[in-house]
Amino acid sequence: MGQPQQPDQAEAEEPGAPGPDAGAGTVPRAGAVAPPAGSTVGDGPRVGYWPAGLAGGTEKPQLRVGMVGYAFMGAAHSQGWRTAGRVFDLPLTPVLAAVCGRDADAVRAMADRHGWAGTETDWRQLIARDDIDLVDICTPGDSHAEIALAALAAGKHVLCEKPLANTVAEAERMAVAAEEAYAQGRLAMVGFNYRRVPATALGRRMVAEGRLGALRHVRVTYLQDWLVDPEFPLTWRLRKESAGSGALGDLGAHIVDLAQYLAGEPVVGVSALMETFVRERPLPAGVSSGLASSGGTAGRGAVTVDDTALFTGRFASGAVASFEATRFATGRKNALRIELNGERGSLAFDLERLNELAFHDHTEPAAHAGFRRILVTEPDHPYLDAWWPPGHGLGYEHTFVHQARDLVHAVAAGRRPEPSFADGLQVQRVLAAVEESAEKNSVYTPTHTPTAV
Amino acid sequence: MGQPQQPDQAEAEEPGAPGPDAGAGTVPRAGAVAPPAGSTVGDGPRVGYWPAGLAGGTEKPQLRVGMVGYAFMGAAHSQGWRTAGRVFDLPLTPVLAAVCGRDADAVRAMADRHGWAGTETDWRQLIARDDIDLVDICTPGDSHAEIALAALAAGKHVLCEKPLANTVAEAERMAVAAEEAYAQGRLAMVGFNYRRVPATALGRRMVAEGRLGALRHVRVTYLQDWLVDPEFPLTWRLRKESAGSGALGDLGAHIVDLAQYLAGEPVVGVSALMETFVRERPLPAGVSSGLASSGGTAGRGAVTVDDTALFTGRFASGAVASFEATRFATGRKNALRIELNGERGSLAFDLERLNELAFHDHTEPAAHAGFRRILVTEPDHPYLDAWWPPGHGLGYEHTFVHQARDLVHAVAAGRRPEPSFADGLQVQRVLAAVEESAEKNSVYTPTHTPTAV
Amino acid sequence: MGQPQQPDQAEAEEPGAPGPDAGAGTVPRAGAVAPPAGSTVGDGPRVGYWPAGLAGGTEKPQLRVGMVGYAFMGAAHSQGWRTAGRVFDLPLTPVLAAVCGRDADAVRAMADRHGWAGTETDWRQLIARDDIDLVDICTPGDSHAEIALAALAAGKHVLCEKPLANTVAEAERMAVAAEEAYAQGRLAMVGFNYRRVPATALGRRMVAEGRLGALRHVRVTYLQDWLVDPEFPLTWRLRKESAGSGALGDLGAHIVDLAQYLAGEPVVGVSALMETFVRERPLPAGVSSGLASSGGTAGRGAVTVDDTALFTGRFASGAVASFEATRFATGRKNALRIELNGERGSLAFDLERLNELAFHDHTEPAAHAGFRRILVTEPDHPYLDAWWPPGHGLGYEHTFVHQARDLVHAVAAGRRPEPSFADGLQVQRVLAAVEESAEKNSVYTPTHTPTAV
Amino acid sequence: MGQPQQPDQAEAEEPGAPGPDAGAGTVPRAGAVAPPAGSTVGDGPRVGYWPAGLAGGTEKPQLRVGMVGYAFMGAAHSQGWRTAGRVFDLPLTPVLAAVCGRDADAVRAMADRHGWAGTETDWRQLIARDDIDLVDICTPGDSHAEIALAALAAGKHVLCEKPLANTVAEAERMAVAAEEAYAQGRLAMVGFNYRRVPATALGRRMVAEGRLGALRHVRVTYLQDWLVDPEFPLTWRLRKESAGSGALGDLGAHIVDLAQYLAGEPVVGVSALMETFVRERPLPAGVSSGLASSGGTAGRGAVTVDDTALFTGRFASGAVASFEATRFATGRKNALRIELNGERGSLAFDLERLNELAFHDHTEPAAHAGFRRILVTEPDHPYLDAWWPPGHGLGYEHTFVHQARDLVHAVAAGRRPEPSFADGLQVQRVLAAVEESAEKNSVYTPTHTPTAV
Repeated sequence: MGQPQQPDQAEAEEPGAPGPDAGAGTVPRAGAVAPPAGSTVGDGPRVGYWPAGLAGGTEKPQLRVGMVGYAFMGAAHSQGWRTAGRVFDLPLTPVLAAVCGRDADAVRAMADRHGWAGTETDWRQLIARDDIDLVDICTPGDSHAEIALAALAAGKHVLCEKPLANTVAEAERMAVAAEEAYAQGRLAMVGFNYRRVPATALGRRMVAEGRLGALRHVRVTYLQDWLVDPEFPLTWRLRKESAGSGALGDLGAHIVDLAQYLAGEPVVGVSALMETFVRERPLPAGVSSGLASSGGTAGRGAVTVDDTALFTGRFASGAVASFEATRFATGRKNALRIELNGERGSLAFDLERLNELAFHDHTEPAAHAGFRRILVTEPDHPYLDAWWPPGHGLGYEHTFVHQARDLVHAVAAGRRPEPSFADGLQVQRVLAAVEESAEKNSVYTPTHTPTAV
Repeated sequence: MGQPQQPDQAEAEEPGAPGPDAGAGTVPRAGAVAPPAGSTVGDGPRVGYWPAGLAGGTEKPQLRVGMVGYAFMGAAHSQGWRTAGRVFDLPLTPVLAAVCGRDADAVRAMADRHGWAGTETDWRQLIARDDIDLVDICTPGDSHAEIALAALAAGKHVLCEKPLANTVAEAERMAVAAEEAYAQGRLAMVGFNYRRVPATALGRRMVAEGRLGALRHVRVTYLQDWLVDPEFPLTWRLRKESAGSGALGDLGAHIVDLAQYLAGEPVVGVSALMETFVRERPLPAGVSSGLASSGGTAGRGAVTVDDTALFTGRFASGAVASFEATRFATGRKNALRIELNGERGSLAFDLERLNELAFHDHTEPAAHAGFRRILVTEPDHPYLDAWWPPGHGLGYEHTFVHQARDLVHAVAAGRRPEPSFADGLQVQRVLAAVEESAEKNSVYTPTHTPTAV
Repeated sequence: MGQPQQPDQAEAEEPGAPGPDAGAGTVPRAGAVAPPAGSTVGDGPRVGYWPAGLAGGTEKPQLRVGMVGYAFMGAAHSQGWRTAGRVFDLPLTPVLAAVCGRDADAVRAMADRHGWAGTETDWRQLIARDDIDLVDICTPGDSHAEIALAALAAGKHVLCEKPLANTVAEAERMAVAAEEAYAQGRLAMVGFNYRRVPATALGRRMVAEGRLGALRHVRVTYLQDWLVDPEFPLTWRLRKESAGSGALGDLGAHIVDLAQYLAGEPVVGVSALMETFVRERPLPAGVSSGLASSGGTAGRGAVTVDDTALFTGRFASGAVASFEATRFATGRKNALRIELNGERGSLAFDLERLNELAFHDHTEPAAHAGFRRILVTEPDHPYLDAWWPPGHGLGYEHTFVHQARDLVHAVAAGRRPEPSFADGLQVQRVLAAVEESAEKNSVYTPTHTPTAV
Repeated sequence: MGQPQQPDQAEAEEPGAPGPDAGAGTVPRAGAVAPPAGSTVGDGPRVGYWPAGLAGGTEKPQLRVGMVGYAFMGAAHSQGWRTAGRVFDLPLTPVLAAVCGRDADAVRAMADRHGWAGTETDWRQLIARDDIDLVDICTPGDSHAEIALAALAAGKHVLCEKPLANTVAEAERMAVAAEEAYAQGRLAMVGFNYRRVPATALGRRMVAEGRLGALRHVRVTYLQDWLVDPEFPLTWRLRKESAGSGALGDLGAHIVDLAQYLAGEPVVGVSALMETFVRERPLPAGVSSGLASSGGTAGRGAVTVDDTALFTGRFASGAVASFEATRFATGRKNALRIELNGERGSLAFDLERLNELAFHDHTEPAAHAGFRRILVTEPDHPYLDAWWPPGHGLGYEHTFVHQARDLVHAVAAGRRPEPSFADGLQVQRVLAAVEESAEKNSVYTPTHTPTAV
């Protein structure tokens, strides 16, 4: 029986493709459950939008999720957990067990809205619960390390939003803890969701296939414009103590990870320039959720993070790169744009048109060559066999559905998920080198090689 | 009852905007429930991703949905019903009560996957159930009329997939029945989901605001390519008895409705040309779900529907139009493209880039004028206040979430939903005029004016 | 010696490639001169921007041009004749011998500006001159037939602007006369310059190579907006007696020719709708040059031509087509857009981005397929070996340079140029069928098969 | 002498706009000639394609041009000089008096092809001629200083290709000499032709009008791919002694000038990274013209210039910038792309689509805002009143026509042309800072403030 939604036997690391038979798992697993025997994917013609022979999801083992934080990312992760098992054929059924936040009324309302069974107001209580298998951390970066370390220590799987931490030291501890936890069968993943856009996952596949040849250039920008107005209030995202950094940690973390992911190699050094254009902003009087605030204002306060970070860099292979993250690019709303140029071909992607990937095949005769626009909506594109017919595109939130899907497969198989905490640490090291370079008059600053991990 | 394409005077009719105070309802309603007092949408600064003061969804009245058909459209509608109440603040909570299909195992599997509480194998049983408030019809067009008429007669609200029916006669009966049912407080809507792309809803708003001035041109294509391969099997979509017509009913229905919706006026006549390029195809041996089939083939059969339909036409105002629907436009996957040119401005939309709307303001000085790309992801764009920050786009399936949202609001308010069955009938009349013109050597053929409705 | 600017020995009919050795000419030629023996092109690496071994242009025979008409087209043709021999290595040197217009002062000023040696105020005088080899007709359509017939009768080569004539009867006489003149060694060409955009010429080459396979669809629009303002004056282009028709003859002629050229086959029938949106306009008081006028106005007059023409049609092979020509598409300035869909691939072109051709290769795996943007600026693209490095684009007027180049080669080789008057007649027949269909309620109207030619 | 990038107060400095009444000239002029009294441009309705009242070009004074160098740039400049007076109404008639090159046969052939009256084989002879008013230097950068200084000393006007020189020291001498020559009525201009694309000139006008507000970001790339093939031969452009630098001087010079021109302010410091990917290439055996070579190869030699240069920088106002110049961006042929983000709006331009300018007006309501594509072909766009109707685009070579036009106006008016040698020097200082930073581990390196000039 063809079961089109189920993933195939392809290499376990490829996004959109799950792990091999769980029986192949080589590490001890606590609570992980094998997928249905004989589970296969993608073979045979596509007969419909559900698996005709499926015995019913109720009998599957559950993966009980407890989420900390309930704002923008909390909403996005909720969509991911709720939808993943409806669209993909998963070995475990995600259960929205409990959501945690300090304001009891607000977290209750959020739980009702998004379908979380319970609530907590103290993340330590959440972690202490027996009926939680996985802790999903959606708080600002300053609390990531503490929560993640405690959750891993408590025997939970952990999904942690990016950036992994606000400092390299924290990130290093987290990566060590993740490695130790893995030996106990517990998994840790960092939420670089843009790896899970079908178009970027396809791009990674094409690079890995050698379609770009020797890499020469990576250029990537992440342009937004929501801070252009000098009267935009001083939310937590604009304070170093909560956010760690500004555009750098928020947007720069994404593009460093995505660039390294697509290139398949690390950034080894950078030269950086950072700037804060508007150095004082109105203090919000009421609730602040990061991207917006309610209520009036109460005086003005200093912006203590960067408005923009620009840096050039080198990859391990000798390819050169340029990066730019900003919240002041008027008219650009979410313009994460990346281009890779190799000796044999090039790729280009723009998050504002996330269903498309541009590819230039330089091995073709010049008379017929050119960047082609691949509409990444075909059944044999990553993640797409479970979705809609060609041309019927996906949106931003689907990256969280795919993230949940891939993590569930990893848990079931006892396999290290990607991006790992070590990947998150590597990004953190690059961000630290950026800050160091910016402080040292832009001098070229090597990224410290990971040693502990 | 006038011309269904013209927007109602009430602000409430705007897609993405909620209904007025339910107390304003002027027709009897059975089972409809007022939204929470004070419920408003989109006013005030945005404080987060859920309403802080909401008392909790569990106390809301329910809207219990029974769905007939469970293939492509069934999956899409499931996503819509499951998600609408999680994202939008709805006056009623949609409940996925039961799904109906002839193959008991398959429908059971689908119900498990998508979260439908129960199953039925006979739609008459579904309709007979007391615990169903709304029947959602996702079957091929040949069964729409029978099911919808029975469901309305049984006192259910009805959502019927497009095209409304396979013939004008059926559609007329359905429109009459819908009108009668409305007097009893029961609502009927047809599933032209492309009205609920935020970009098209914004386009409608801009036309209604007069930004285009006197309309001169509408040109619209719906281009797909999945039939180019002559070995693609003869599924139900290629047989007149099940599908009614080919590209015309499937794609042409969408573009006729969308053109009339955006223009705000009806097509009054057409001149058409239809063609079947591949007249014989392999018979599928196994299950056929419309866009694909499993199993082998068993000989060849005649394609009895059109592969393409092209027509020119006139709108009531004197604007001229061109339409093209095809499944043979190699490389075009879902290219529903529409452009409207008016004396004061123009709009253009492409479903393959559904988060964008192009607008040319002809009242600006020529030196600075040009088509602008509006990224339709701002909080004050239709439906967007409930979704993500600017630049974080939506996908195809969100149209079904919005459709569910709007229908729930209409039911709660006892207000006629749009597009109504009368709107569906108007589309059917245009399609019939197209077929008549094509049979009569393309002679210009007026669209019969609606009389009964 | 590599002489990169010189054309190669490729098939004579391909645009951008000149004829074979003139010695191969099989018809009598009067005044035609063989190109330099051993002329070859494009072999060897490109060494520079002039032929190192060229003996000097002064010794080449001349082609003395007399031009009738001196407005928009006159200026464009002047650029073509003046530049062609500077960029391309031509067998004959074009000489701007004389320009003719009724207003002696104005034509003198134009001659001085554009470098025409002499002037005439009566085209009969121009034709009577011994020192004119080729008559270039740039007047409105109502005088084409008379001038062209007289010029051919006087033993001149003729280049006639499009549309060939204002009626089929005139065009037929012209095609017959051209055929008779050819027997006397005199050539006639019609000025469909859009065949000579490198991108369209490349498109034709790709179609001829079979890259599209069986043709299914052609859709083409030519959208302008300069008549949207109802106060735009009633110039000659808006009067049937001078222009023959409106958007149809002006824009429609171009797209019918380009569609037939790219498809490589004729349109065999059409169903049409024509409309005049603004039926009365101010009469210009002063000089009118077609696209603009000076001076004030003197009352209002009736517009006697179409503002727009839309038609569907069939090609000889069974492919279907849609056409739209309009001067009311607000925001579209020169949007000649054509797309061809075949079983194996598709092409798309937009005159507003004339250095690009989009190509979809449907024989590639779906996972990597998509429309590619070919930047048509490579040395092995048509006409490009004589111009700039890759990526350095050409403009509108270059089509006239290429037209002059190709005609000079044809004259030197005594070879029939394309598009011929027979090609112009075929376009005229399609336009006549369009007008006939529009008058007959859009009924499908076959294009009369050429018989005399 | 201030900051050369800042626009002159005089309206006359706007590209595409002619000079004021020559009588307003305040400096001594030798040989400069007043334009015809009453000569104006662009005022009044457009009546045609030539000035009806023009007395005839033969009576105009001449500007006799002698050109040194005759390869790619020589061909482009020839087109410019030959065409400018045919299209624009110029106060002086450019005469292609003589072209100079070392190979007598080759330069003779080039002169014949492009219409130069005479030839020279020694540039000193050219400069010594009485019948030359202006020396146009199209040689590689290593000879610019010597020729320009000699020409100015000989009392000639000078147009010098970019980069102005290969070193800052040379450029400083040239700028001083230009200033001294100006006191004698002789003018000097540097050939940054991309200022004269209508779209960039429009962009400059919009920035000057304040449409961008406070500038925050400039990002600019110039991407080509002609060196990707490691077997591409070692032409003069790849050797430091002839070219000075690689991508930096060739492409980087263009983008630094264009960025400063559009921003209206200088770059004050940079942090740079340079790389040579392919360090050895085949030596060309025969003639080498920079972009190509003929003949075979003779061993391999070291590439002594950069393949790519990336740098970040700061503008005087505090805006930050990123620059990238490369010849290794596979699939990018001539992708000079620049974007400026200001507090009130943004501009974007791509040389591969040079008839377009994208503009985002951030003062509009977010619901209707977005980047608009201005098709820069309107009569009130810079330079466009002399060309074709809207939508009929120009090409690369037109920048040289416009350059010739503007220089002729400047000469006639005795007015300093832009970009001046001081502008060229400023670019040179930035390039030098880039090289210095790249050598010093990317440390931020201020651009030395012009002092001598």
